[in-house]
Amino acid sequence: MNNSDRHFSRAAQAYQESEIRRTGAIGATVKGLISLAAGVPAPEMFPWDDLQAITADILSRHDGNSLQYGATRGYRPLIDHLVSTHLASRGLTARFEEVVITTGSQQGLDLAGRVLIDPGDVVLVELPTYSGAIAAFHNLQAALVGVKQDGEGLCIEALDQIVADLVAQGRRPKFVYVTPNFQNPAGLLMSLARRAALLEAAARHDLLILEDDPYGTLYFEDAARSEDTRPIKADDRDGRVIYLGSMSKTLVPGFRVAWLVAPLAIAQKVELCKQAADLCSGVFDQRVVHATLERGVVQRIAPALRSHYQHKRTTMEGALAARLPGRVRWTSPRGGFFLWIRLPDGVDDRALFERALKQKVSFVIGSAFHVDGGGHDCARLSFSGITPAQIEEGIARLAAAF
Amino acid sequence: MNNSDRHFSRAAQAYQESEIRRTGAIGATVKGLISLAAGVPAPEMFPWDDLQAITADILSRHDGNSLQYGATRGYRPLIDHLVSTHLASRGLTARFEEVVITTGSQQGLDLAGRVLIDPGDVVLVELPTYSGAIAAFHNLQAALVGVKQDGEGLCIEALDQIVADLVAQGRRPKFVYVTPNFQNPAGLLMSLARRAALLEAAARHDLLILEDDPYGTLYFEDAARSEDTRPIKADDRDGRVIYLGSMSKTLVPGFRVAWLVAPLAIAQKVELCKQAADLCSGVFDQRVVHATLERGVVQRIAPALRSHYQHKRTTMEGALAARLPGRVRWTSPRGGFFLWIRLPDGVDDRALFERALKQKVSFVIGSAFHVDGGGHDCARLSFSGITPAQIEEGIARLAAAF
Repeated sequence: MNNSDRHFSRAAQAYQESEIRRTGAIGATVKGLISLAAGVPAPEMFPWDDLQAITADILSRHDGNSLQYGATRGYRPLIDHLVSTHLASRGLTARFEEVVITTGSQQGLDLAGRVLIDPGDVVLVELPTYSGAIAAFHNLQAALVGVKQDGEGLCIEALDQIVADLVAQGRRPKFVYVTPNFQNPAGLLMSLARRAALLEAAARHDLLILEDDPYGTLYFEDAARSEDTRPIKADDRDGRVIYLGSMSKTLVPGFRVAWLVAPLAIAQKVELCKQAADLCSGVFDQRVVHATLERGVVQRIAPALRSHYQHKRTTMEGALAARLPGRVRWTSPRGGFFLWIRLPDGVDDRALFERALKQKVSFVIGSAFHVDGGGHDCARLSFSGITPAQIEEGIARLAAAF
Repeated sequence: MNNSDRHFSRAAQAYQESEIRRTGAIGATVKGLISLAAGVPAPEMFPWDDLQAITADILSRHDGNSLQYGATRGYRPLIDHLVSTHLASRGLTARFEEVVITTGSQQGLDLAGRVLIDPGDVVLVELPTYSGAIAAFHNLQAALVGVKQDGEGLCIEALDQIVADLVAQGRRPKFVYVTPNFQNPAGLLMSLARRAALLEAAARHDLLILEDDPYGTLYFEDAARSEDTRPIKADDRDGRVIYLGSMSKTLVPGFRVAWLVAPLAIAQKVELCKQAADLCSGVFDQRVVHATLERGVVQRIAPALRSHYQHKRTTMEGALAARLPGRVRWTSPRGGFFLWIRLPDGVDDRALFERALKQKVSFVIGSAFHVDGGGHDCARLSFSGITPAQIEEGIARLAAAF
């Protein structure tokens, strides 16, 4: 068959490649490249010895259920532990029936989207927002509308205006997608007042909130406190928030273990969607992650991770101040993996990217995180997955590209 | 919010629970139940020592990439090994670019469906067919049309007639879904002549074929040969077949490692769909599965699995002949996990299921595998995951339920 296009669904005809993945693929062809693009956790912090002990213990029991098909909803002791300890420690009260284990938070975005979005439905996202969420909602044929942010997070006035305009056109948005804690890419921490205001706005407009929280426990102790990261879901009185949490940034991404917490009726639909989407997430992986929680591994390494990433942030900020004094601006991130820089007037993100590749350094262009065609004056720099020496050298190369 | 329904997508409003999962949930409430329902592999055959050695080896290397995010397409050495060895041994020639690792074959069904199906599109399936495929295509709002089977597999004449009728209505089917090797639920082996005829019919009607092959290497040596299981994809000259293979039945299901092989343009769309659906399948799991192939574990246990399941099939057939002589009929399966029985006249699958539960035995009702409202005179009995003694006792209880 010379042409498969006639077979494709309308959604598939419009699929777009993720800019981050495309950047990664291009970067992989450059020998000796330093990647400020990959938003990955630091492998030097992976708890190898604990994982080796845990996997050996699980397999030595010869318990068939540890390698068998599992419940679609997830491994019950893992969910129970999340509910009673991890979620509770974040102020979040949930019942077992409201939780679904997902194959990474990316699957949570996809499943929530599939349960809520019909083609043409409006979804509100932050400007900028996580590019993987853009891809998930775009693939479901959503119409994405961006809402600007200020230093406290998503602007409620802008949200009100956009919803009013849409409703006037007969188009009620389905939900608003936010990453309140150390957003990928902008690194912003939404203020507690803004979270409360967003909940009120959601009630006012009868909107659902999809809250993505992979970085919540990775606050920098020199700039934020645990209380500052309280999930919006913790104050969700009328079942309006779908919450996504993950072990990808606080343990390892390779197990693909994350969770979705939603009002019961939504969680049930998500479970049915997942049942037909992949039956269940990795059963062995879930047991390993459960053991890391039960043995306190995740809890033990959390403070070390906080100071690890804080140190890398400080390193990157120092390098930028030294190598590009006054040329780029940024809001100092109070947690997470990213530094979001504003480029000097007249510098385009795509042109800078081409020049950066010649200097053997990469980043993600700012426009990849914008649904409004903007962001060409911005860039996302990741400090998480590389060493301080690589950060210094990467910023030196970036400065050479300017 | 008292009523979430108004938020749901049209697809979500129509989600249905899988009958197999529902049966399992009901069964889980019956103490001492013997399940002839669960189509799971035999845990006593899991290669525990190999898996313990492999996981210890991988983790002892402290290679961050083994627990990091991975390529959406999958772990390259795993794909390369599948292409050069496993697929090649089945007569199937594929390039790296045509393969995508999936989170179980269930994800392969979902991704292929998402790439091909628009709401209302017709998908052709066998009568009976795998209920998980019904769920996947139903959730994508496909219109499912059943094609009857005879002793050689899907009836080409029936297929021709159905397509002609649909085309006359202006409705060209998107693809036909088949499980040629030891189909779940009917256990049928499609003849080689029928496979060739199906390829011809697909070309005649410009149909794609979605070929699901989880059981292909689990033929019973007293009734079939490896040559009899040759994938349709092996003879796909014009890029018409999407092929799904899996490690769930031949190694363990808990790693959720399976693969999709498709013509390049389709594989590229599947990769983009998966990118937004879960970024990548479990990275550690893929490394473990790769090592089991590279070290010959999968190859070594295959003959033992064939004789193991053959023995269980013989046990179940013997028990049925002894306990229900002349009451139920079946075609002896030549491989796989299932025995598909025809119930006596007047016995309804749902009524029998209720009586069976009282006898502490379960199975899956035949109608769960039918898209035409039929199958109430059939039942699927699994012999794979329980011991010979449980098979004997299970059939004795089933006989008591009659």
